[in-house]
Amino acid sequence: MNPERAKRRMQAASEEAGRQGFAAVVVAPSPDLVYLTGYDPMPLERATLLVLQPGRDPFLVVPELERPLAASAPAGGEIDLRGWTDGADPYRLVVDPLPGSGLVVVSDRTWAAHVLALQGAAPGITWSSASPVLGKLRAIKDTEELDALRRAGASADRAFVDVVRLPFAGRREDEVAADLARLLRHHGHTSVDFTIVAGGPNGASPHHEPGARVVLPGDVVVMDFGGVLDGYCSDTTRTVVVGDPTPEQREVHGVVEAAQRAARQAVRPGHALQEVDRAAREMIAAAGYGERFIHRTGHGIGIEVHEPPYVIEGNETPMEPGMTFSVEPGIYLPGAFGVRIEDIVAVTSDGVETFNDSPRGLSVVG
Amino acid sequence: MNPERAKRRMQAASEEAGRQGFAAVVVAPSPDLVYLTGYDPMPLERATLLVLQPGRDPFLVVPELERPLAASAPAGGEIDLRGWTDGADPYRLVVDPLPGSGLVVVSDRTWAAHVLALQGAAPGITWSSASPVLGKLRAIKDTEELDALRRAGASADRAFVDVVRLPFAGRREDEVAADLARLLRHHGHTSVDFTIVAGGPNGASPHHEPGARVVLPGDVVVMDFGGVLDGYCSDTTRTVVVGDPTPEQREVHGVVEAAQRAARQAVRPGHALQEVDRAAREMIAAAGYGERFIHRTGHGIGIEVHEPPYVIEGNETPMEPGMTFSVEPGIYLPGAFGVRIEDIVAVTSDGVETFNDSPRGLSVVG
Repeated sequence: MNPERAKRRMQAASEEAGRQGFAAVVVAPSPDLVYLTGYDPMPLERATLLVLQPGRDPFLVVPELERPLAASAPAGGEIDLRGWTDGADPYRLVVDPLPGSGLVVVSDRTWAAHVLALQGAAPGITWSSASPVLGKLRAIKDTEELDALRRAGASADRAFVDVVRLPFAGRREDEVAADLARLLRHHGHTSVDFTIVAGGPNGASPHHEPGARVVLPGDVVVMDFGGVLDGYCSDTTRTVVVGDPTPEQREVHGVVEAAQRAARQAVRPGHALQEVDRAAREMIAAAGYGERFIHRTGHGIGIEVHEPPYVIEGNETPMEPGMTFSVEPGIYLPGAFGVRIEDIVAVTSDGVETFNDSPRGLSVVG
Repeated sequence: MNPERAKRRMQAASEEAGRQGFAAVVVAPSPDLVYLTGYDPMPLERATLLVLQPGRDPFLVVPELERPLAASAPAGGEIDLRGWTDGADPYRLVVDPLPGSGLVVVSDRTWAAHVLALQGAAPGITWSSASPVLGKLRAIKDTEELDALRRAGASADRAFVDVVRLPFAGRREDEVAADLARLLRHHGHTSVDFTIVAGGPNGASPHHEPGARVVLPGDVVVMDFGGVLDGYCSDTTRTVVVGDPTPEQREVHGVVEAAQRAARQAVRPGHALQEVDRAAREMIAAAGYGERFIHRTGHGIGIEVHEPPYVIEGNETPMEPGMTFSVEPGIYLPGAFGVRIEDIVAVTSDGVETFNDSPRGLSVVG
């Protein structure tokens, strides 16, 4: 990230905070800090806190021993660095320049240790989540961000196309998962965050951790995988079957495939995000599996794998061009199997662009 | 971790909370949760929160889609799992069983998003950090934990012994850092958390991020590295020189070496932790470098690389057998070089055991 971009983002966040009536935005090491400054230190018990105030220059409270690191970050030259040494109180450095009362927001991933200390240092301030400010800004991706997400999606798709050529039957879930991780890296991913491989009954657990279970002939296998490429996340799910599917497997997969398609088609600017959830849910309910679709339809994605906006009943936020999120309905039959299909999509000026395009049909693996 | 151990630890935490006057301990996904239950899900915006109350059985509020994961964790059978589905309010499930007022502690790494939501759901409760309860318990390692830390330290030492045989001059810092990471894995580390390689002036930045700078003849090079082996962390620092050291380099290194030895010798049960910091600081100050030792002397270590207790002026907590922490004084000369020497030590019944034993003298590299 170049310093100008960081400056613009910090400026936008300060202005948005002002519009919403907040006196300041306090940001700890997290994807929020990366988004605003390009600075990505390890979150630690030593407080590093960026403070943005409408109409004022930003400052960063930073452990003295990390000052050189902060100074060399992309936004280092745009921020007043205020160092503190072990034994001093960093929270006073944050709150003393703020008004003694009023509303201040704090980034969602800030550790409790820091939030509680800030509250103790400024009991007159009302603290709340920075998500209405930062989540709102981050939800709309610019051209460069969209391109990074497009590349991450394409890379994940190539990993899927390769993995279905490998043998499944007789191998452990965690072996297939290791192959998926290797293939993601091979196709350009910098890091791999998760490679769910859930065969047979394990597929009914949406966040299953792949383990020693051996994939058997006849298994339906859910594969949900993703990582980071050029700072942006991938996240896609496909469900395959080992050998010929049974009629039930084929039917359930068909319902999810149709529901996922309907949900993607419901993506268009100006409509509420909950419409996307409803499109998938209504189709699954109509097929008699409503009780077996046990999660929301999707989540925003960008520098975090889960971030606003959320695709869920009750979210009346209108879709805007540049929003990116997952569309991932599923059906989970405890003791039997699960099916989920997931793509990352972007809202465009007149509809939707899909960043994943590997085959969604019920692929047969060996 | 076996279920019995998890049960004992949860029981001990509940009792300790009761002794300190807390109505409950709330724990989010973090090393605290791993310590108590062996359950290690990815921290996410969906709330997973363990609730421990004195005299009551523990319960875990968990997203319905992760219930199977939680149930299969080591402590899964010892905890009442209370699932919630997307769209429901998980915070009510946490606070409704608690008294409407009183003191409740929350784990230090809990995300602000969850802490603020808990506070909103139970405004009558006074929330504070769980560190006085959980940090206190975790600070005293049992035999199994001490053994894991001993193995992690020995593995890191072997990586150091190997790395100094490689060429330094003419190679980039990040190349040497990659070698260190490879060697840590080769000697048994499961993951590598950091491999600081800071040559020449970069050594004056204690948390320097290794980069493109090429190591030059005559450079002093600080190497601070660690990772995880069998769930427990390593963290050690050695400072080497490329070719013959100058008298100043030799002198500064000698001061740090003597200060580090004095600090290790100050480790003994019953004495305050700050005595260890003082032993190092007084020796460095006496040599005229007091202003250049810009951080505390050490931090606890276990399943986290930084955890209580902290070795710092003002910490009057008496050392107890089973406490493990780093002893890592340094001298940082901006624009010139830095020197730091770090070992992990354990307090024993009558003194100290050192878990790192690679050569501390000023090793000459090529």
